Amino acid sequence: MKAFQFVEWQRPGELREVPIPEPGPGEVLIKVGGAGACHSDLHLLEAPAGPMALPFTLGHENAGWVEEMGSGTTGFARGDAVVVYGPWGCGLCMNCRRGMENYCQTPGRPSPGGLGGNDGGMAEYLLVPSTRFLIPLGDLDPRDAAPLTDAGLTSYHAVKRSAHLLGPGSTAVVIGAGGLGQMAIQVLRALCDATTVVAVDTSADKLEIATSMGADVALVSGEDAVRRIRDITGGLGAELVLDLVGIAPTLAMAAEVSRVLGHLTIVGLGNASLPVSFHGPALECSVAAPFWGSIPELIEVISLARSGKIEMKVEHFSLDQAAHAYELLHHGKIRGRAVITPHG
Amino acid sequence: MKAFQFVEWQRPGELREVPIPEPGPGEVLIKVGGAGACHSDLHLLEAPAGPMALPFTLGHENAGWVEEMGSGTTGFARGDAVVVYGPWGCGLCMNCRRGMENYCQTPGRPSPGGLGGNDGGMAEYLLVPSTRFLIPLGDLDPRDAAPLTDAGLTSYHAVKRSAHLLGPGSTAVVIGAGGLGQMAIQVLRALCDATTVVAVDTSADKLEIATSMGADVALVSGEDAVRRIRDITGGLGAELVLDLVGIAPTLAMAAEVSRVLGHLTIVGLGNASLPVSFHGPALECSVAAPFWGSIPELIEVISLARSGKIEMKVEHFSLDQAAHAYELLHHGKIRGRAVITPHG
Amino acid sequence: MKAFQFVEWQRPGELREVPIPEPGPGEVLIKVGGAGACHSDLHLLEAPAGPMALPFTLGHENAGWVEEMGSGTTGFARGDAVVVYGPWGCGLCMNCRRGMENYCQTPGRPSPGGLGGNDGGMAEYLLVPSTRFLIPLGDLDPRDAAPLTDAGLTSYHAVKRSAHLLGPGSTAVVIGAGGLGQMAIQVLRALCDATTVVAVDTSADKLEIATSMGADVALVSGEDAVRRIRDITGGLGAELVLDLVGIAPTLAMAAEVSRVLGHLTIVGLGNASLPVSFHGPALECSVAAPFWGSIPELIEVISLARSGKIEMKVEHFSLDQAAHAYELLHHGKIRGRAVITPHG
Amino acid sequence: MKAFQFVEWQRPGELREVPIPEPGPGEVLIKVGGAGACHSDLHLLEAPAGPMALPFTLGHENAGWVEEMGSGTTGFARGDAVVVYGPWGCGLCMNCRRGMENYCQTPGRPSPGGLGGNDGGMAEYLLVPSTRFLIPLGDLDPRDAAPLTDAGLTSYHAVKRSAHLLGPGSTAVVIGAGGLGQMAIQVLRALCDATTVVAVDTSADKLEIATSMGADVALVSGEDAVRRIRDITGGLGAELVLDLVGIAPTLAMAAEVSRVLGHLTIVGLGNASLPVSFHGPALECSVAAPFWGSIPELIEVISLARSGKIEMKVEHFSLDQAAHAYELLHHGKIRGRAVITPHG
Repeated sequence: MKAFQFVEWQRPGELREVPIPEPGPGEVLIKVGGAGACHSDLHLLEAPAGPMALPFTLGHENAGWVEEMGSGTTGFARGDAVVVYGPWGCGLCMNCRRGMENYCQTPGRPSPGGLGGNDGGMAEYLLVPSTRFLIPLGDLDPRDAAPLTDAGLTSYHAVKRSAHLLGPGSTAVVIGAGGLGQMAIQVLRALCDATTVVAVDTSADKLEIATSMGADVALVSGEDAVRRIRDITGGLGAELVLDLVGIAPTLAMAAEVSRVLGHLTIVGLGNASLPVSFHGPALECSVAAPFWGSIPELIEVISLARSGKIEMKVEHFSLDQAAHAYELLHHGKIRGRAVITPHG
Repeated sequence: MKAFQFVEWQRPGELREVPIPEPGPGEVLIKVGGAGACHSDLHLLEAPAGPMALPFTLGHENAGWVEEMGSGTTGFARGDAVVVYGPWGCGLCMNCRRGMENYCQTPGRPSPGGLGGNDGGMAEYLLVPSTRFLIPLGDLDPRDAAPLTDAGLTSYHAVKRSAHLLGPGSTAVVIGAGGLGQMAIQVLRALCDATTVVAVDTSADKLEIATSMGADVALVSGEDAVRRIRDITGGLGAELVLDLVGIAPTLAMAAEVSRVLGHLTIVGLGNASLPVSFHGPALECSVAAPFWGSIPELIEVISLARSGKIEMKVEHFSLDQAAHAYELLHHGKIRGRAVITPHG
Repeated sequence: MKAFQFVEWQRPGELREVPIPEPGPGEVLIKVGGAGACHSDLHLLEAPAGPMALPFTLGHENAGWVEEMGSGTTGFARGDAVVVYGPWGCGLCMNCRRGMENYCQTPGRPSPGGLGGNDGGMAEYLLVPSTRFLIPLGDLDPRDAAPLTDAGLTSYHAVKRSAHLLGPGSTAVVIGAGGLGQMAIQVLRALCDATTVVAVDTSADKLEIATSMGADVALVSGEDAVRRIRDITGGLGAELVLDLVGIAPTLAMAAEVSRVLGHLTIVGLGNASLPVSFHGPALECSVAAPFWGSIPELIEVISLARSGKIEMKVEHFSLDQAAHAYELLHHGKIRGRAVITPHG
Repeated sequence: MKAFQFVEWQRPGELREVPIPEPGPGEVLIKVGGAGACHSDLHLLEAPAGPMALPFTLGHENAGWVEEMGSGTTGFARGDAVVVYGPWGCGLCMNCRRGMENYCQTPGRPSPGGLGGNDGGMAEYLLVPSTRFLIPLGDLDPRDAAPLTDAGLTSYHAVKRSAHLLGPGSTAVVIGAGGLGQMAIQVLRALCDATTVVAVDTSADKLEIATSMGADVALVSGEDAVRRIRDITGGLGAELVLDLVGIAPTLAMAAEVSRVLGHLTIVGLGNASLPVSFHGPALECSVAAPFWGSIPELIEVISLARSGKIEMKVEHFSLDQAAHAYELLHHGKIRGRAVITPHG
């Protein structure tokens, strides 16, 4: 079968011919519907070197149809549409047993694509090590649903862990109104409709989309935005500040609009860090940098998508166009999310 | 001043002339804008006898304007529009210190109107024992806002305590689509928009209103409703079942559609009780009968009302019409909530 | 191999010769160290009939050593000491994915022994369908640890779900100081040492044991016990009332000593039920009847046992003595827990 | 009466004669039993200047006996032993209404002593603006109980907010085994006895005290301590890391031993800050710097002290010796807590 693989450090991926994997006991073979191209792959493709053995197939945001169930597996049947939960844990540590395989406590977990170096979903077929990584999609199209497993789930988790703070009279600030930010705004609307959602970005275009997705207020980054948020919150700051950029100026702004007993959550991989002390951000504001989300949360993301409450914009590319898709991504020319669709 | 008082057991209330109270240290005098007439007053007016000393002024759902601040009080000024939190606790026990004066642990608390026998709000002026029972109303009209303090707060609390169960894919069943039920449906929409809200009632009219308030599904009471809810929930029952009626058939239905690890909450004062054991309702479903809500929750209710996310239908009556209003209430002829407006 | 099986309704179990099972893909064969004899088995053995197909091997409280790993399994090795989590769920529904397979949402789950009719642990070997039901025991002896999986886990869960209520100044009442009650008292000491633990029983002997296990107060059942608990709690009742008996008088007592906003938890299978309404038990006291516990909780139970903070008294019986052990159990002559030890 | 006052910036306090205050409406006059001398006062006394108007009486950790109730006050009587909650909020904002007056949202709150510039407790009498700042002491001696209101409450809050993380198998690391650290260790024992408590300090003496207070492991600061904690936690880090020092090396160590999904809590005022990003501390570890604690928590602290589960070592000084006590404190010569006892 054809697979888009990462073959050598600091070189673009390439399309190669590899054998179709055969599912062993407990494993499942998935016919890939869609495999998302993620920014984090770009970091990898541009890195001088890394811990993974090459080559491997890219793609950690995957959805498709069950093709073949390995021996000893039950619960799914050939043809079932599914998404594939991305972070593949050991299944036996305390976190895995609670469905949080994103925080597996056993070293060396074999996640697919750029995350663990196992073969990912940018191929005609994907081998999944256990049925516990599959979530039924119902009537959603796997080609559109793939990004829900990462862009969708990451945003969802970042909001849900703070949802108890976001009752009537509260404010949530979303810094960065790109793909994840747009998803976060939709999730805020769905889970905490009583909160005032403020979107902040440098781009007027993105702010317009943010408003159409449900943001109550859309602000261009800068000192004025800080003032506006202080006004909206009676000078107290926002219960949740979600920084989806993570560079020095956004983190500084996040701290300035944080609130006593609030949450300041760093999702963006901008490589800056936020100094925390008694002097800032606000007292007892919890600062944390979460990673991805849990399996039960992915079930909830799919449920939201099926009910139409969240939607992710995607652009489809064939396997042959995978390298091109990454190039567009690199140049910021993808609107929404690029998805490779190996079977058209 | 004129006051509508409860003078003798098993006789209707009557309008009497009484002195305007003077606020002592720590107290506040309120010029009453609106005082709601509540079903629980009817129970009282029809009871053979009770623990309260007569006469006293009726009205425990009150809103108005600050008229005079007693010595040692701060935080409000003459003319401020406020609602009056109803259950007046001691302020010093553990529950009061958390703002839950509805569960004051000191016996003999002096709540107003039929709830503690202190003079209530169906008069030109109401004496409130502490500023901590006042919540600013902003630009809401006290004549419309009064019922938010009981009908609004009771519904809000009953939903909010279960909001963590009501994520994507969940179901909430509201049994009884009268005033409290309509409020509960609006609160569910505002706090947990991802949940599927099912309204159940015997009246097609009320079900129509329920749908207009945001119920996703409206069902006429009966075996068929149980079947439909089982279908909607994949046979698992609803995460929250809110019984706003509390008679034997509604409680039986509530148990039938309850869910493992869910909540079954009894708000209606229908005088029946629900037997709980290992055999029903669903395993580890928490059954509870809450009473009213907390001060912080009332602040949130006012916030929701100010943002337009909840609204209570009210009919205004002058003090002279108070007896008539209770008569209409007794005969089920009030749409929404009857509010006495002493100053027009 | 030898297996103690339930062969015919309303007849004692009998020892039979059956084949040693072979682990298929994903399955694990356990060499049984200990299999607890539980009161719930007696209910079954005395029932006129039931849903399970006969015969099957008894024993749902199991521990032992890994004998053989089926294909596709990892994480354990031959000889590892393990306990076996009892309620075997589907692994794919929402509850199973959170580790709560005791509340599996898929009908027809195949739990071992009397709970689902699959072969249980009263045999030389036990076939377990997945590694996710195994918890490492470390240096604990499987012959002693088996009852931790049911008597231990059930008590643990019943306490842990209410631990947030049991801070300084709080009170927990344990009604019934038998095996589960003794375990509950130890768990209360370990998780919530600041709470005042009150044990109630009809037997002075058991109350003495309760005190030695850490109860602060031990009371003989009756009106006087209710008065004492009201005194201890300043007339407010206990934050947690745990009824491990579940008959009409214990449930009535539980309601009398319940507290506003508290928990009243029914664990005992005494076949009575508690009527809940606005008039009792205390307002907003949550009444629930949980069943068993989760996999993460079993890990915590094992951790407590390894640290010496909880201990279960056991009496060992050979497979040949299994029928005799159930007879002793039936006549109330087992101190602690009877455990069948097929390999001595 | 005599009062120990802060009269001029960068000069020691001095004993002065001032009038005994008279309680107005809502206020209470306290006969001071004990007023703790706190490290934070030293910061103030040594500062070049500050926001407070001078002079004012020092002392924000206060306990004593009710001397006179102002008009309109109830709930206490002359002679009642009480502690005085330190952070005096407005009582009307959302945080105050939940009992968290330490996080009052109204600017310019008038806390006593060095915290707000109101007269504090290092005088014969202390004027308290409301009964809501008084907690009954029962039979505890105010001269010993005063430090419970700050050193005690601050430690208690820092532990309690993380108690849900500290079940069986968990680890809590307390960095800094001085007065607050010793209190934190006792609170950990009382609230979360199943957790493994690790104390870290540079002083062998303090580590010995830490062990006597209930620490399971006592480690001298340094690389070896980090290694030991990693061993104890199976390489995963501690669920709670409490830094009671807050200088650069302790914060760095805290980050190194932090755990995914854990809490890293900064209590020490060491003036360093901890950089937080995706690269450290552990993923989704919540970093926060809380300030003091709530009124309900102070009630719990008093309850713990009354039951003997926590105890604070104190040294008593007369008002005449107050300047001397601060000098000893400055030179690190106070064991436990210095308390000024104006009435002997």
